[in-house]
Amino acid sequence: MPIETRDRGLDPRERQGRAPSTAQESPASAYQRVRATSTRYCKPLSTEDFVVQSMPDVSPTKWHLAHTSWFFETFILQKFLKGYRPFCPDYAVLFNSYYNAVGEQFPRPRRGLLSRPTVEEVLRYREYVDRHVLELLESCAGDSSAEMSSLLTLGLHHEQQHQELMLTDIKHVFSCNPLRPVYMERKAESSTAVASLGWTPRAGGLHSIGHDGNGFAYDNETPRHQVFVHPYRLATRLVTNGEYMAFVADDGYARPELWLSDGWAMRQTEEWSAPLYWERRDDRWWYMTLAGMREVDADAPVCHVSYFEADAFARWRGVRLPTEAEWETVAEAVPCEGNFADDEHFHPIPAFESQFQKRNQGATGGSPASDGWPPSSDSEIGSATISRIAQTFGDVWEWTGSPYVAYPGYRPAAGAVGEYNGKFMCQQYVLRGGSCATGRSHIRPTYRNFFPPQARWQFSGIRLAADPD
Amino acid sequence: MPIETRDRGLDPRERQGRAPSTAQESPASAYQRVRATSTRYCKPLSTEDFVVQSMPDVSPTKWHLAHTSWFFETFILQKFLKGYRPFCPDYAVLFNSYYNAVGEQFPRPRRGLLSRPTVEEVLRYREYVDRHVLELLESCAGDSSAEMSSLLTLGLHHEQQHQELMLTDIKHVFSCNPLRPVYMERKAESSTAVASLGWTPRAGGLHSIGHDGNGFAYDNETPRHQVFVHPYRLATRLVTNGEYMAFVADDGYARPELWLSDGWAMRQTEEWSAPLYWERRDDRWWYMTLAGMREVDADAPVCHVSYFEADAFARWRGVRLPTEAEWETVAEAVPCEGNFADDEHFHPIPAFESQFQKRNQGATGGSPASDGWPPSSDSEIGSATISRIAQTFGDVWEWTGSPYVAYPGYRPAAGAVGEYNGKFMCQQYVLRGGSCATGRSHIRPTYRNFFPPQARWQFSGIRLAADPD
Amino acid sequence: MPIETRDRGLDPRERQGRAPSTAQESPASAYQRVRATSTRYCKPLSTEDFVVQSMPDVSPTKWHLAHTSWFFETFILQKFLKGYRPFCPDYAVLFNSYYNAVGEQFPRPRRGLLSRPTVEEVLRYREYVDRHVLELLESCAGDSSAEMSSLLTLGLHHEQQHQELMLTDIKHVFSCNPLRPVYMERKAESSTAVASLGWTPRAGGLHSIGHDGNGFAYDNETPRHQVFVHPYRLATRLVTNGEYMAFVADDGYARPELWLSDGWAMRQTEEWSAPLYWERRDDRWWYMTLAGMREVDADAPVCHVSYFEADAFARWRGVRLPTEAEWETVAEAVPCEGNFADDEHFHPIPAFESQFQKRNQGATGGSPASDGWPPSSDSEIGSATISRIAQTFGDVWEWTGSPYVAYPGYRPAAGAVGEYNGKFMCQQYVLRGGSCATGRSHIRPTYRNFFPPQARWQFSGIRLAADPD
Amino acid sequence: MPIETRDRGLDPRERQGRAPSTAQESPASAYQRVRATSTRYCKPLSTEDFVVQSMPDVSPTKWHLAHTSWFFETFILQKFLKGYRPFCPDYAVLFNSYYNAVGEQFPRPRRGLLSRPTVEEVLRYREYVDRHVLELLESCAGDSSAEMSSLLTLGLHHEQQHQELMLTDIKHVFSCNPLRPVYMERKAESSTAVASLGWTPRAGGLHSIGHDGNGFAYDNETPRHQVFVHPYRLATRLVTNGEYMAFVADDGYARPELWLSDGWAMRQTEEWSAPLYWERRDDRWWYMTLAGMREVDADAPVCHVSYFEADAFARWRGVRLPTEAEWETVAEAVPCEGNFADDEHFHPIPAFESQFQKRNQGATGGSPASDGWPPSSDSEIGSATISRIAQTFGDVWEWTGSPYVAYPGYRPAAGAVGEYNGKFMCQQYVLRGGSCATGRSHIRPTYRNFFPPQARWQFSGIRLAADPD
Repeated sequence: MPIETRDRGLDPRERQGRAPSTAQESPASAYQRVRATSTRYCKPLSTEDFVVQSMPDVSPTKWHLAHTSWFFETFILQKFLKGYRPFCPDYAVLFNSYYNAVGEQFPRPRRGLLSRPTVEEVLRYREYVDRHVLELLESCAGDSSAEMSSLLTLGLHHEQQHQELMLTDIKHVFSCNPLRPVYMERKAESSTAVASLGWTPRAGGLHSIGHDGNGFAYDNETPRHQVFVHPYRLATRLVTNGEYMAFVADDGYARPELWLSDGWAMRQTEEWSAPLYWERRDDRWWYMTLAGMREVDADAPVCHVSYFEADAFARWRGVRLPTEAEWETVAEAVPCEGNFADDEHFHPIPAFESQFQKRNQGATGGSPASDGWPPSSDSEIGSATISRIAQTFGDVWEWTGSPYVAYPGYRPAAGAVGEYNGKFMCQQYVLRGGSCATGRSHIRPTYRNFFPPQARWQFSGIRLAADPD
Repeated sequence: MPIETRDRGLDPRERQGRAPSTAQESPASAYQRVRATSTRYCKPLSTEDFVVQSMPDVSPTKWHLAHTSWFFETFILQKFLKGYRPFCPDYAVLFNSYYNAVGEQFPRPRRGLLSRPTVEEVLRYREYVDRHVLELLESCAGDSSAEMSSLLTLGLHHEQQHQELMLTDIKHVFSCNPLRPVYMERKAESSTAVASLGWTPRAGGLHSIGHDGNGFAYDNETPRHQVFVHPYRLATRLVTNGEYMAFVADDGYARPELWLSDGWAMRQTEEWSAPLYWERRDDRWWYMTLAGMREVDADAPVCHVSYFEADAFARWRGVRLPTEAEWETVAEAVPCEGNFADDEHFHPIPAFESQFQKRNQGATGGSPASDGWPPSSDSEIGSATISRIAQTFGDVWEWTGSPYVAYPGYRPAAGAVGEYNGKFMCQQYVLRGGSCATGRSHIRPTYRNFFPPQARWQFSGIRLAADPD
Repeated sequence: MPIETRDRGLDPRERQGRAPSTAQESPASAYQRVRATSTRYCKPLSTEDFVVQSMPDVSPTKWHLAHTSWFFETFILQKFLKGYRPFCPDYAVLFNSYYNAVGEQFPRPRRGLLSRPTVEEVLRYREYVDRHVLELLESCAGDSSAEMSSLLTLGLHHEQQHQELMLTDIKHVFSCNPLRPVYMERKAESSTAVASLGWTPRAGGLHSIGHDGNGFAYDNETPRHQVFVHPYRLATRLVTNGEYMAFVADDGYARPELWLSDGWAMRQTEEWSAPLYWERRDDRWWYMTLAGMREVDADAPVCHVSYFEADAFARWRGVRLPTEAEWETVAEAVPCEGNFADDEHFHPIPAFESQFQKRNQGATGGSPASDGWPPSSDSEIGSATISRIAQTFGDVWEWTGSPYVAYPGYRPAAGAVGEYNGKFMCQQYVLRGGSCATGRSHIRPTYRNFFPPQARWQFSGIRLAADPD
Repeated sequence: MPIETRDRGLDPRERQGRAPSTAQESPASAYQRVRATSTRYCKPLSTEDFVVQSMPDVSPTKWHLAHTSWFFETFILQKFLKGYRPFCPDYAVLFNSYYNAVGEQFPRPRRGLLSRPTVEEVLRYREYVDRHVLELLESCAGDSSAEMSSLLTLGLHHEQQHQELMLTDIKHVFSCNPLRPVYMERKAESSTAVASLGWTPRAGGLHSIGHDGNGFAYDNETPRHQVFVHPYRLATRLVTNGEYMAFVADDGYARPELWLSDGWAMRQTEEWSAPLYWERRDDRWWYMTLAGMREVDADAPVCHVSYFEADAFARWRGVRLPTEAEWETVAEAVPCEGNFADDEHFHPIPAFESQFQKRNQGATGGSPASDGWPPSSDSEIGSATISRIAQTFGDVWEWTGSPYVAYPGYRPAAGAVGEYNGKFMCQQYVLRGGSCATGRSHIRPTYRNFFPPQARWQFSGIRLAADPD
């Protein structure tokens, strides 16, 4: 959608998401704003909720609060604040996640065994770190080194990632409890007709993807580089629960021919028969949400599916998942708007026809009468139709068919933070676009999230792609 | 030691442990006294400590508090209090431990995943149950049915068992935390020479063991029955840490010929090289205690050893563990005194020569110059020498060489509480005598505790026995 | 040994089983006879059958052949034959089962990975060992040392044990193969009415059990010692498949109240719903036998049940399993006859009324009209009724309710062969009486076999016992 | 295909490997030739060797022989030979590897439990299938359908894949046996100086990779498509054992910063400290080969390394692994020659300077004085230097840094054989070039082999790549 965007004078930095520290905002202010969000997310929790680790992938809330503080203490305060004394020497091991260069780590699967430090002590730790970071920022005034400034920004993005994990992790913790606690009551939604599924044709050719160096990005988004993309079609919205229920009803979980071999093995071992958090009650589907148990909303995007399920669903529909290059070249031309954590839905919401129309005024939408399958044989109309694409950002992370590998010429960041991304480039898949648990200022078109194909506890969903007719 | 005991006018009921509800004490008073102990044990804990389950054998403190209340609610209130409404219907599953006859159980290894109900809610649950039990007792006055009375007493003994588990479980939880939290600072001990090890010879013959029906006993202690005992010798005190360190230093953990086959396999899998909670620091042994990390006290009884270790140690010394009949026939003649939870040491203490002498005035002790090995060739002097036996009750549970099986003619208790003991009569070993975490009024000579041979997190130690020369 | 037995002139040696080496038979002859049985059992096998290990408990046939030879090589030839050179030095590790005192062992669960040595090489190994053993025996003439003589006898009994394992192991191997190979076609049986179940009352009192030192016995059968037995009743025959099918049909495998806690867990994990080798086909039960798949014979003794199943079955019938003392005091008075491996049925056979009558002429049998439940209230008539007891020896090993522990005063055999029995005295149960895969000359009334309670691949079955009315 | 290659008159068919069925060869002749190789590989084996499965990845030789026959029976005979009756109906399940569309499969990890059918029966099965296939081919004469013809060719390539697995699997089986059996004595090698490592610079740009449809290819090699390649350098030969020993000696297995996160976890769990089959003996490295235990040849290519090790080694050298596009564009211009199974070395051999010179006469080689690190700053001289590349085909499969994914526009083959490749496109990496266990006629530049990153039992090695200076 290059034309409209240009017309609207969309600032590229805006397009890539409001950085935690914007030009208008001082580092100290950005720091305080981002850090405050972590504690704000804890408001609905009781002390006991901070302690539990419901599976190795999940960390206790308390651990997230401490680890993000450890990050600033270790990479900023210990390095740049002269005479800084750590709050508690034992935390160096307890709250190191996986940085071998920094030292030993307390084993991840045992984080839930630590009742101490208490929540109160962890909050004191945060205050201690905050006080010293702000002191450091003040002492530097506007004169902080590029390295420190860059690490500070990294620390804030890191904190935002953990904020998302705090939400997905507590959802998992609560889901294991038959009492099904409510994290936050949910806002009512005014339901209207969901947008029908359309297909936007896209021309192929040499494209550039990856971050161009303006503003913050993780090392794994660089360097920007050329990639040859073949012509394709991209679905105009996310797959809905209703569409996914049809897959389930069509025995999708019982037909090995629809599944990758590893996915089928996983499905059998784990006895998957629906997305994570779904339960069958009296012939209807319910799911656990951060607002407690709800009946599944057929219009909302399907969520908490693994790559294996996303891939099987796509195969069932005779199509496929997009590559990350296919996704990114579209996303670059779309406003970085959507249903984010800032909206406090904490759940994906439907792409209603009304919103869709409003956003895409004048664009030729998919025929409302059609459900969009098979992909229609529209002539390729290129980027002019990108305006038809909804839900690109927010709602759910979109599984791509791209394994998470280094971009050509990739170099990990220098120092211990070089362990941030590169060492995970194996057996994981790229997800794009952020979710309803992602902070709006955290996301950008080049952002590469990654999870193993069996992961389901993130807000992960499906956008389809297809080859041209 | 029948004579002295009789001389001292020891009441048989006293000998068998002060029952939670004594003749002098009303049921309501006994109920309140026992229940209060559970909450008293929680005083040193922070809210977070109540949540953690450090291994499947361990339950969160919160769970113990709720489960013991569930026991009264399920077996007493629901049955005997007309119109009683459960505090929360979901608790029926959440806090059922293993009573299949009562219904479903929340899986034991997942108890640590439950942040809710909160500690506060659990305490409210306790108050709710307490209020109704007391109301029920008042309404019955002295006229409660035998069945209700018996179940109430069972419930109090059940609560006492969980009080002990609260202590052993929180010790394990704290031991998993590198911060090594302190449950309770420890009282200073005035150290003097530890008693040397002697051997009391015992004549064989037909003896009766098991509970005779006077006062409370678990079903597994019945019926009292005859058993033929062969002549034997029993060690006059528990094995000390110092003695056990000699076993460790003599490569006891590296010599398969000393171990049972299953024990050797366990030792290798679990990489045991010392008792649970022991750590090597700069050539000295330390251990985790409820008072935090301490250097190992060579004089105190060795503790937190498995049956496999106890058995290997005995084989190394050329002797063996006692059978439960050998143990019980001695214990019946000894005052039920010792280092119990009531003393709030929460750790085994040495059998000092001074105490020993005091207790055994006039008796011929083991020669202080000898360490007691090999068992001396004293002529068999029968029960007259029982006075030499120290540490029979309290300090540590003593592993016997007896597998936990039903006594001849055993019948499980009627109803759901029949699942209390009988169904565990397989692949476990009997331990006797109570520990420093056992309530004084909970123990008696016929008491049969039981754990699998690999269990180490209880206060379990070693008393040796030997065949006659 | 009760009087009536003596009256019938039963030779004690006969009663205790024909020892591999009888008075009439030279050691060399006994050696050749026993060794030949091992190779005779291999006749029906193809070369490939010798290689497979279908679970860690099972050993390849090839391994049994080599290990038994290794036993003679290690404990006899290396010690007593001057200048003996081992056939192949690597075999010292490869074919050592569990003797730590002798050296390293190739890991048991990996025995099936060894294609070499080939069957031919193993047979050459056997011939090499045989030649040297016979040479040694000849050189000693009748003048062999007591130690060598005793080890030779031990080696032959050891070989007989492995002969039984060869049969049970190949049965398991074949059962894993959908082709269901046949080991040996089965002899036809003339079916008549099965004997009804009766109960023999037995008086209690002080009895002696254990081996008295006359003839060969394993160390675990010693010393003979007194034990106090309570009055009881013993079932006159084994439980049949028909009776067990009634348990299955009555949801025996779905009712936790019938099971030990560990047994119930095992049942769920392993998804047991019938004895090992049973399969449901068109509403009928079939089982794998050494003669291939057969429809289950309702009259034959139930077989391939674990202790857990035997115990649950007994509980379902309101009775229990006998203790080993209860079993042995009866077995001492019964001729050591039955369906053994020598008969080459390799399957348990029914206790037909006709045989029963013949064997028990003049005795008062159980009423044919009654199925024997509940145990009848016959007056206690002591050992006079023992003649009513059928199937005491052979057919199936009978699970007792006795954990496998050391007898009072037990001392393991000296030297490396001391690892034979003692180190397994933990978490196993005693089985008595031998099976259809046991050599007739291998069994005796004092023989204590032992397996963990979950073991099912041996020919293990059920005889019931009950307390007096 | 670059110009210089054409200049040298290389026949394209030759370049892509001699297809099992060449133009000159009748289908029947090709069939007989390929099938005979499978049985020829079995010559050195004893019957017992055919049975063993040493890990789930490995299949018994017997199984390979039967499964490849099952492939022809199922996909050709059952479909095209009228009235064909399967040799044995049970084989449909026993020898189906993973084709869900065809029916049930006997569980892969249990293939080693099947002693039956015997080797002799399997060979009869092969003869039966061969007789019928040849009969079918004769009946069709030159008139077989395209579908049948294509399935026949697929079946022969499938058989060649299993021939390679027969070699790698028996190597693994033998390696588990302390006797270390020899599969085939090894030819002597005349050792001379190994070629020094050079770097060939390659220009970037749009290239086409994938199979163009001429001759046989697996579906996963299609469609041929454009890909944008960035400039890079490719190592002129494989990494040697000597170079790898330097990595080991430099603590390469103890430095987490060199490893992918999953790789490091695997290294720790599996306790890797050298490539598979390496053993330390008296300060020197030895390895298991198909010729038995040998001292490691420092000049031969390193082999039996996982992707994780290859990647860690590259990171240690400051470079990386090539992508499959980088590899293929070079391989297309190189003759498809090398050390293949046809040469019966069954082990990788060094790239000796002499051979290297011969092959590359007139080309400017890497300076023999330099070890090639860091990659030299030669000006980019493009494909003219490709002749410097040695060991592209044969010796060892070369790990690429490319996850195994579908090519753009990929469609699985129709029918059940569509399960051949596509369903494994997840969490595996592409390997290229064939190995010393690959048949020469089986390989081609577009050939995509794939294994999980932890796999080590294939002949897998390392070729390095680097970004331009």
